[in-house]
Amino acid sequence: MAVDKILIIGLGLIGGSLARSVRSSGFASSVTAYGHRSRSLKMGMELGVIDSYSLDLDEAMTDAGIVVLAAPTMVCGALLPELLPRLSPGVVLTDVASVKGWLLKAAQQANGGATPGQLVLGHPLAGSERNGVAASSAELFVDHQVIVTPEPETNPEALACVRAMWSSTGANIVEMGAAEHDTMLAATSHLPHMLSYTLMNSLAASAAGTDIFRFAAGGFRDFTRIASSDPIMWRDIALCNRDELLQAIDRYCAHLEALRNAVEAADGQQLQDLFIRAKSFRDTYSRGREPH
Amino acid sequence: MAVDKILIIGLGLIGGSLARSVRSSGFASSVTAYGHRSRSLKMGMELGVIDSYSLDLDEAMTDAGIVVLAAPTMVCGALLPELLPRLSPGVVLTDVASVKGWLLKAAQQANGGATPGQLVLGHPLAGSERNGVAASSAELFVDHQVIVTPEPETNPEALACVRAMWSSTGANIVEMGAAEHDTMLAATSHLPHMLSYTLMNSLAASAAGTDIFRFAAGGFRDFTRIASSDPIMWRDIALCNRDELLQAIDRYCAHLEALRNAVEAADGQQLQDLFIRAKSFRDTYSRGREPH
Repeated sequence: MAVDKILIIGLGLIGGSLARSVRSSGFASSVTAYGHRSRSLKMGMELGVIDSYSLDLDEAMTDAGIVVLAAPTMVCGALLPELLPRLSPGVVLTDVASVKGWLLKAAQQANGGATPGQLVLGHPLAGSERNGVAASSAELFVDHQVIVTPEPETNPEALACVRAMWSSTGANIVEMGAAEHDTMLAATSHLPHMLSYTLMNSLAASAAGTDIFRFAAGGFRDFTRIASSDPIMWRDIALCNRDELLQAIDRYCAHLEALRNAVEAADGQQLQDLFIRAKSFRDTYSRGREPH
Repeated sequence: MAVDKILIIGLGLIGGSLARSVRSSGFASSVTAYGHRSRSLKMGMELGVIDSYSLDLDEAMTDAGIVVLAAPTMVCGALLPELLPRLSPGVVLTDVASVKGWLLKAAQQANGGATPGQLVLGHPLAGSERNGVAASSAELFVDHQVIVTPEPETNPEALACVRAMWSSTGANIVEMGAAEHDTMLAATSHLPHMLSYTLMNSLAASAAGTDIFRFAAGGFRDFTRIASSDPIMWRDIALCNRDELLQAIDRYCAHLEALRNAVEAADGQQLQDLFIRAKSFRDTYSRGREPH
């Protein structure tokens, strides 16, 4: 399965990497891009990431067999009322956002309450703290998971098309419900990003101040790398997965408070138990999943 | 400068790596090890990390020019009253612990209140979530920082000797006060470890449960790797740097609560500001300090 033309809406790290990958695999004959500003689109042309671009949505959508929303989540949500009425029969709409439930609701609202059959929401679990089309790579999705969240109303051909697109990038495809996705990602990705951003702000306010990076060992660098992620993207994720994220933060705070109180009480046994339990959980479930 | 024999007390990752390094650099002619149990000591012999070992402290200390405390911090503290009276003039005592103030106080208490002139506390900022002598490497300290915290009473020859030892491992040596060290390390190392352990315990208690690692991207693995660190070592660090760690945790909690409240209030502007500030702090001060 292959398509003639793919339209990428929002040409950043993920959109650019998808463009590179579907072109080099031959899944798409050409890739065009649409955005509000021409800067990243022009850069995409210069870097050979895309074949063409347009600042006009009607022009950009002409002859596109797949439309991929790859802008920040709230921009995607705002575009849906414009996009859905322009979608010809047989054209597939998908996305790469880190939150699925919010976007599904936005699509239903823009579609008179019904789930659009041509819509297949998806989320590649790949990324980098480096942003923008300049950091894009055709190999970004190889051996990474892509979660696809079809609904009962989803057109089977549309689902097959999106699965084929991700298969062509070398990714492994997993299907689950949008709510399950959002709970999972709140725990494994959204919460850790909040913790890393918070560590930076907490350290910036501390006496140790700016000397910190001079004396930071490898573990610290690993821990804080994700605090260099795109603030606009993460603002949208925090807003769009608000309820799940709040639950994850509150659960985390309760556990942190228990540890804090054990430190204050100098309760060595409890600290040891907490650390052993954490290490055991990580060692057991990360086994065989390390990239190196 | 070189010594005939170095005694390592506690043969784990750090002690074993130091043994390998000073032998391969020629700084020491031989390395012996002492411990309460023979298991890691025998393994050290089998792996060619040390030349000899003993379970008897007097025997182990015979002819040693440098004695290196490399056991968990509280074990080191408990050993000081036995060690200090056995220390011949000219013999240097040092350590590799992650906390300096607590060990300094323990040494003063074991020495009738006075700072022992032969004692030079040090801390190599190198490590791994892998534990034990089997994970040791002669290259562990190359281009890493070693913080040395001499006191006014420290014998200058003892300080020169410890500096020469670390220089021979390829490390960069920095001097600062013990209190300054403990504040800095609470921020850059002890707090992040507590946050990583807490993330594991929080996730273990969540609905996402054990499926988490299946869908965890690279950032998550980086973030949680340090939760596999040695629980006993970290129990001791939390207990021995209690006051500084408590301050760091409390400061962190205040910042996390501010972020949490911005999420609850769906305050996009504040979230964006928090993320931009965090990213800016990290990007500015980590520049040029990334290992790759």
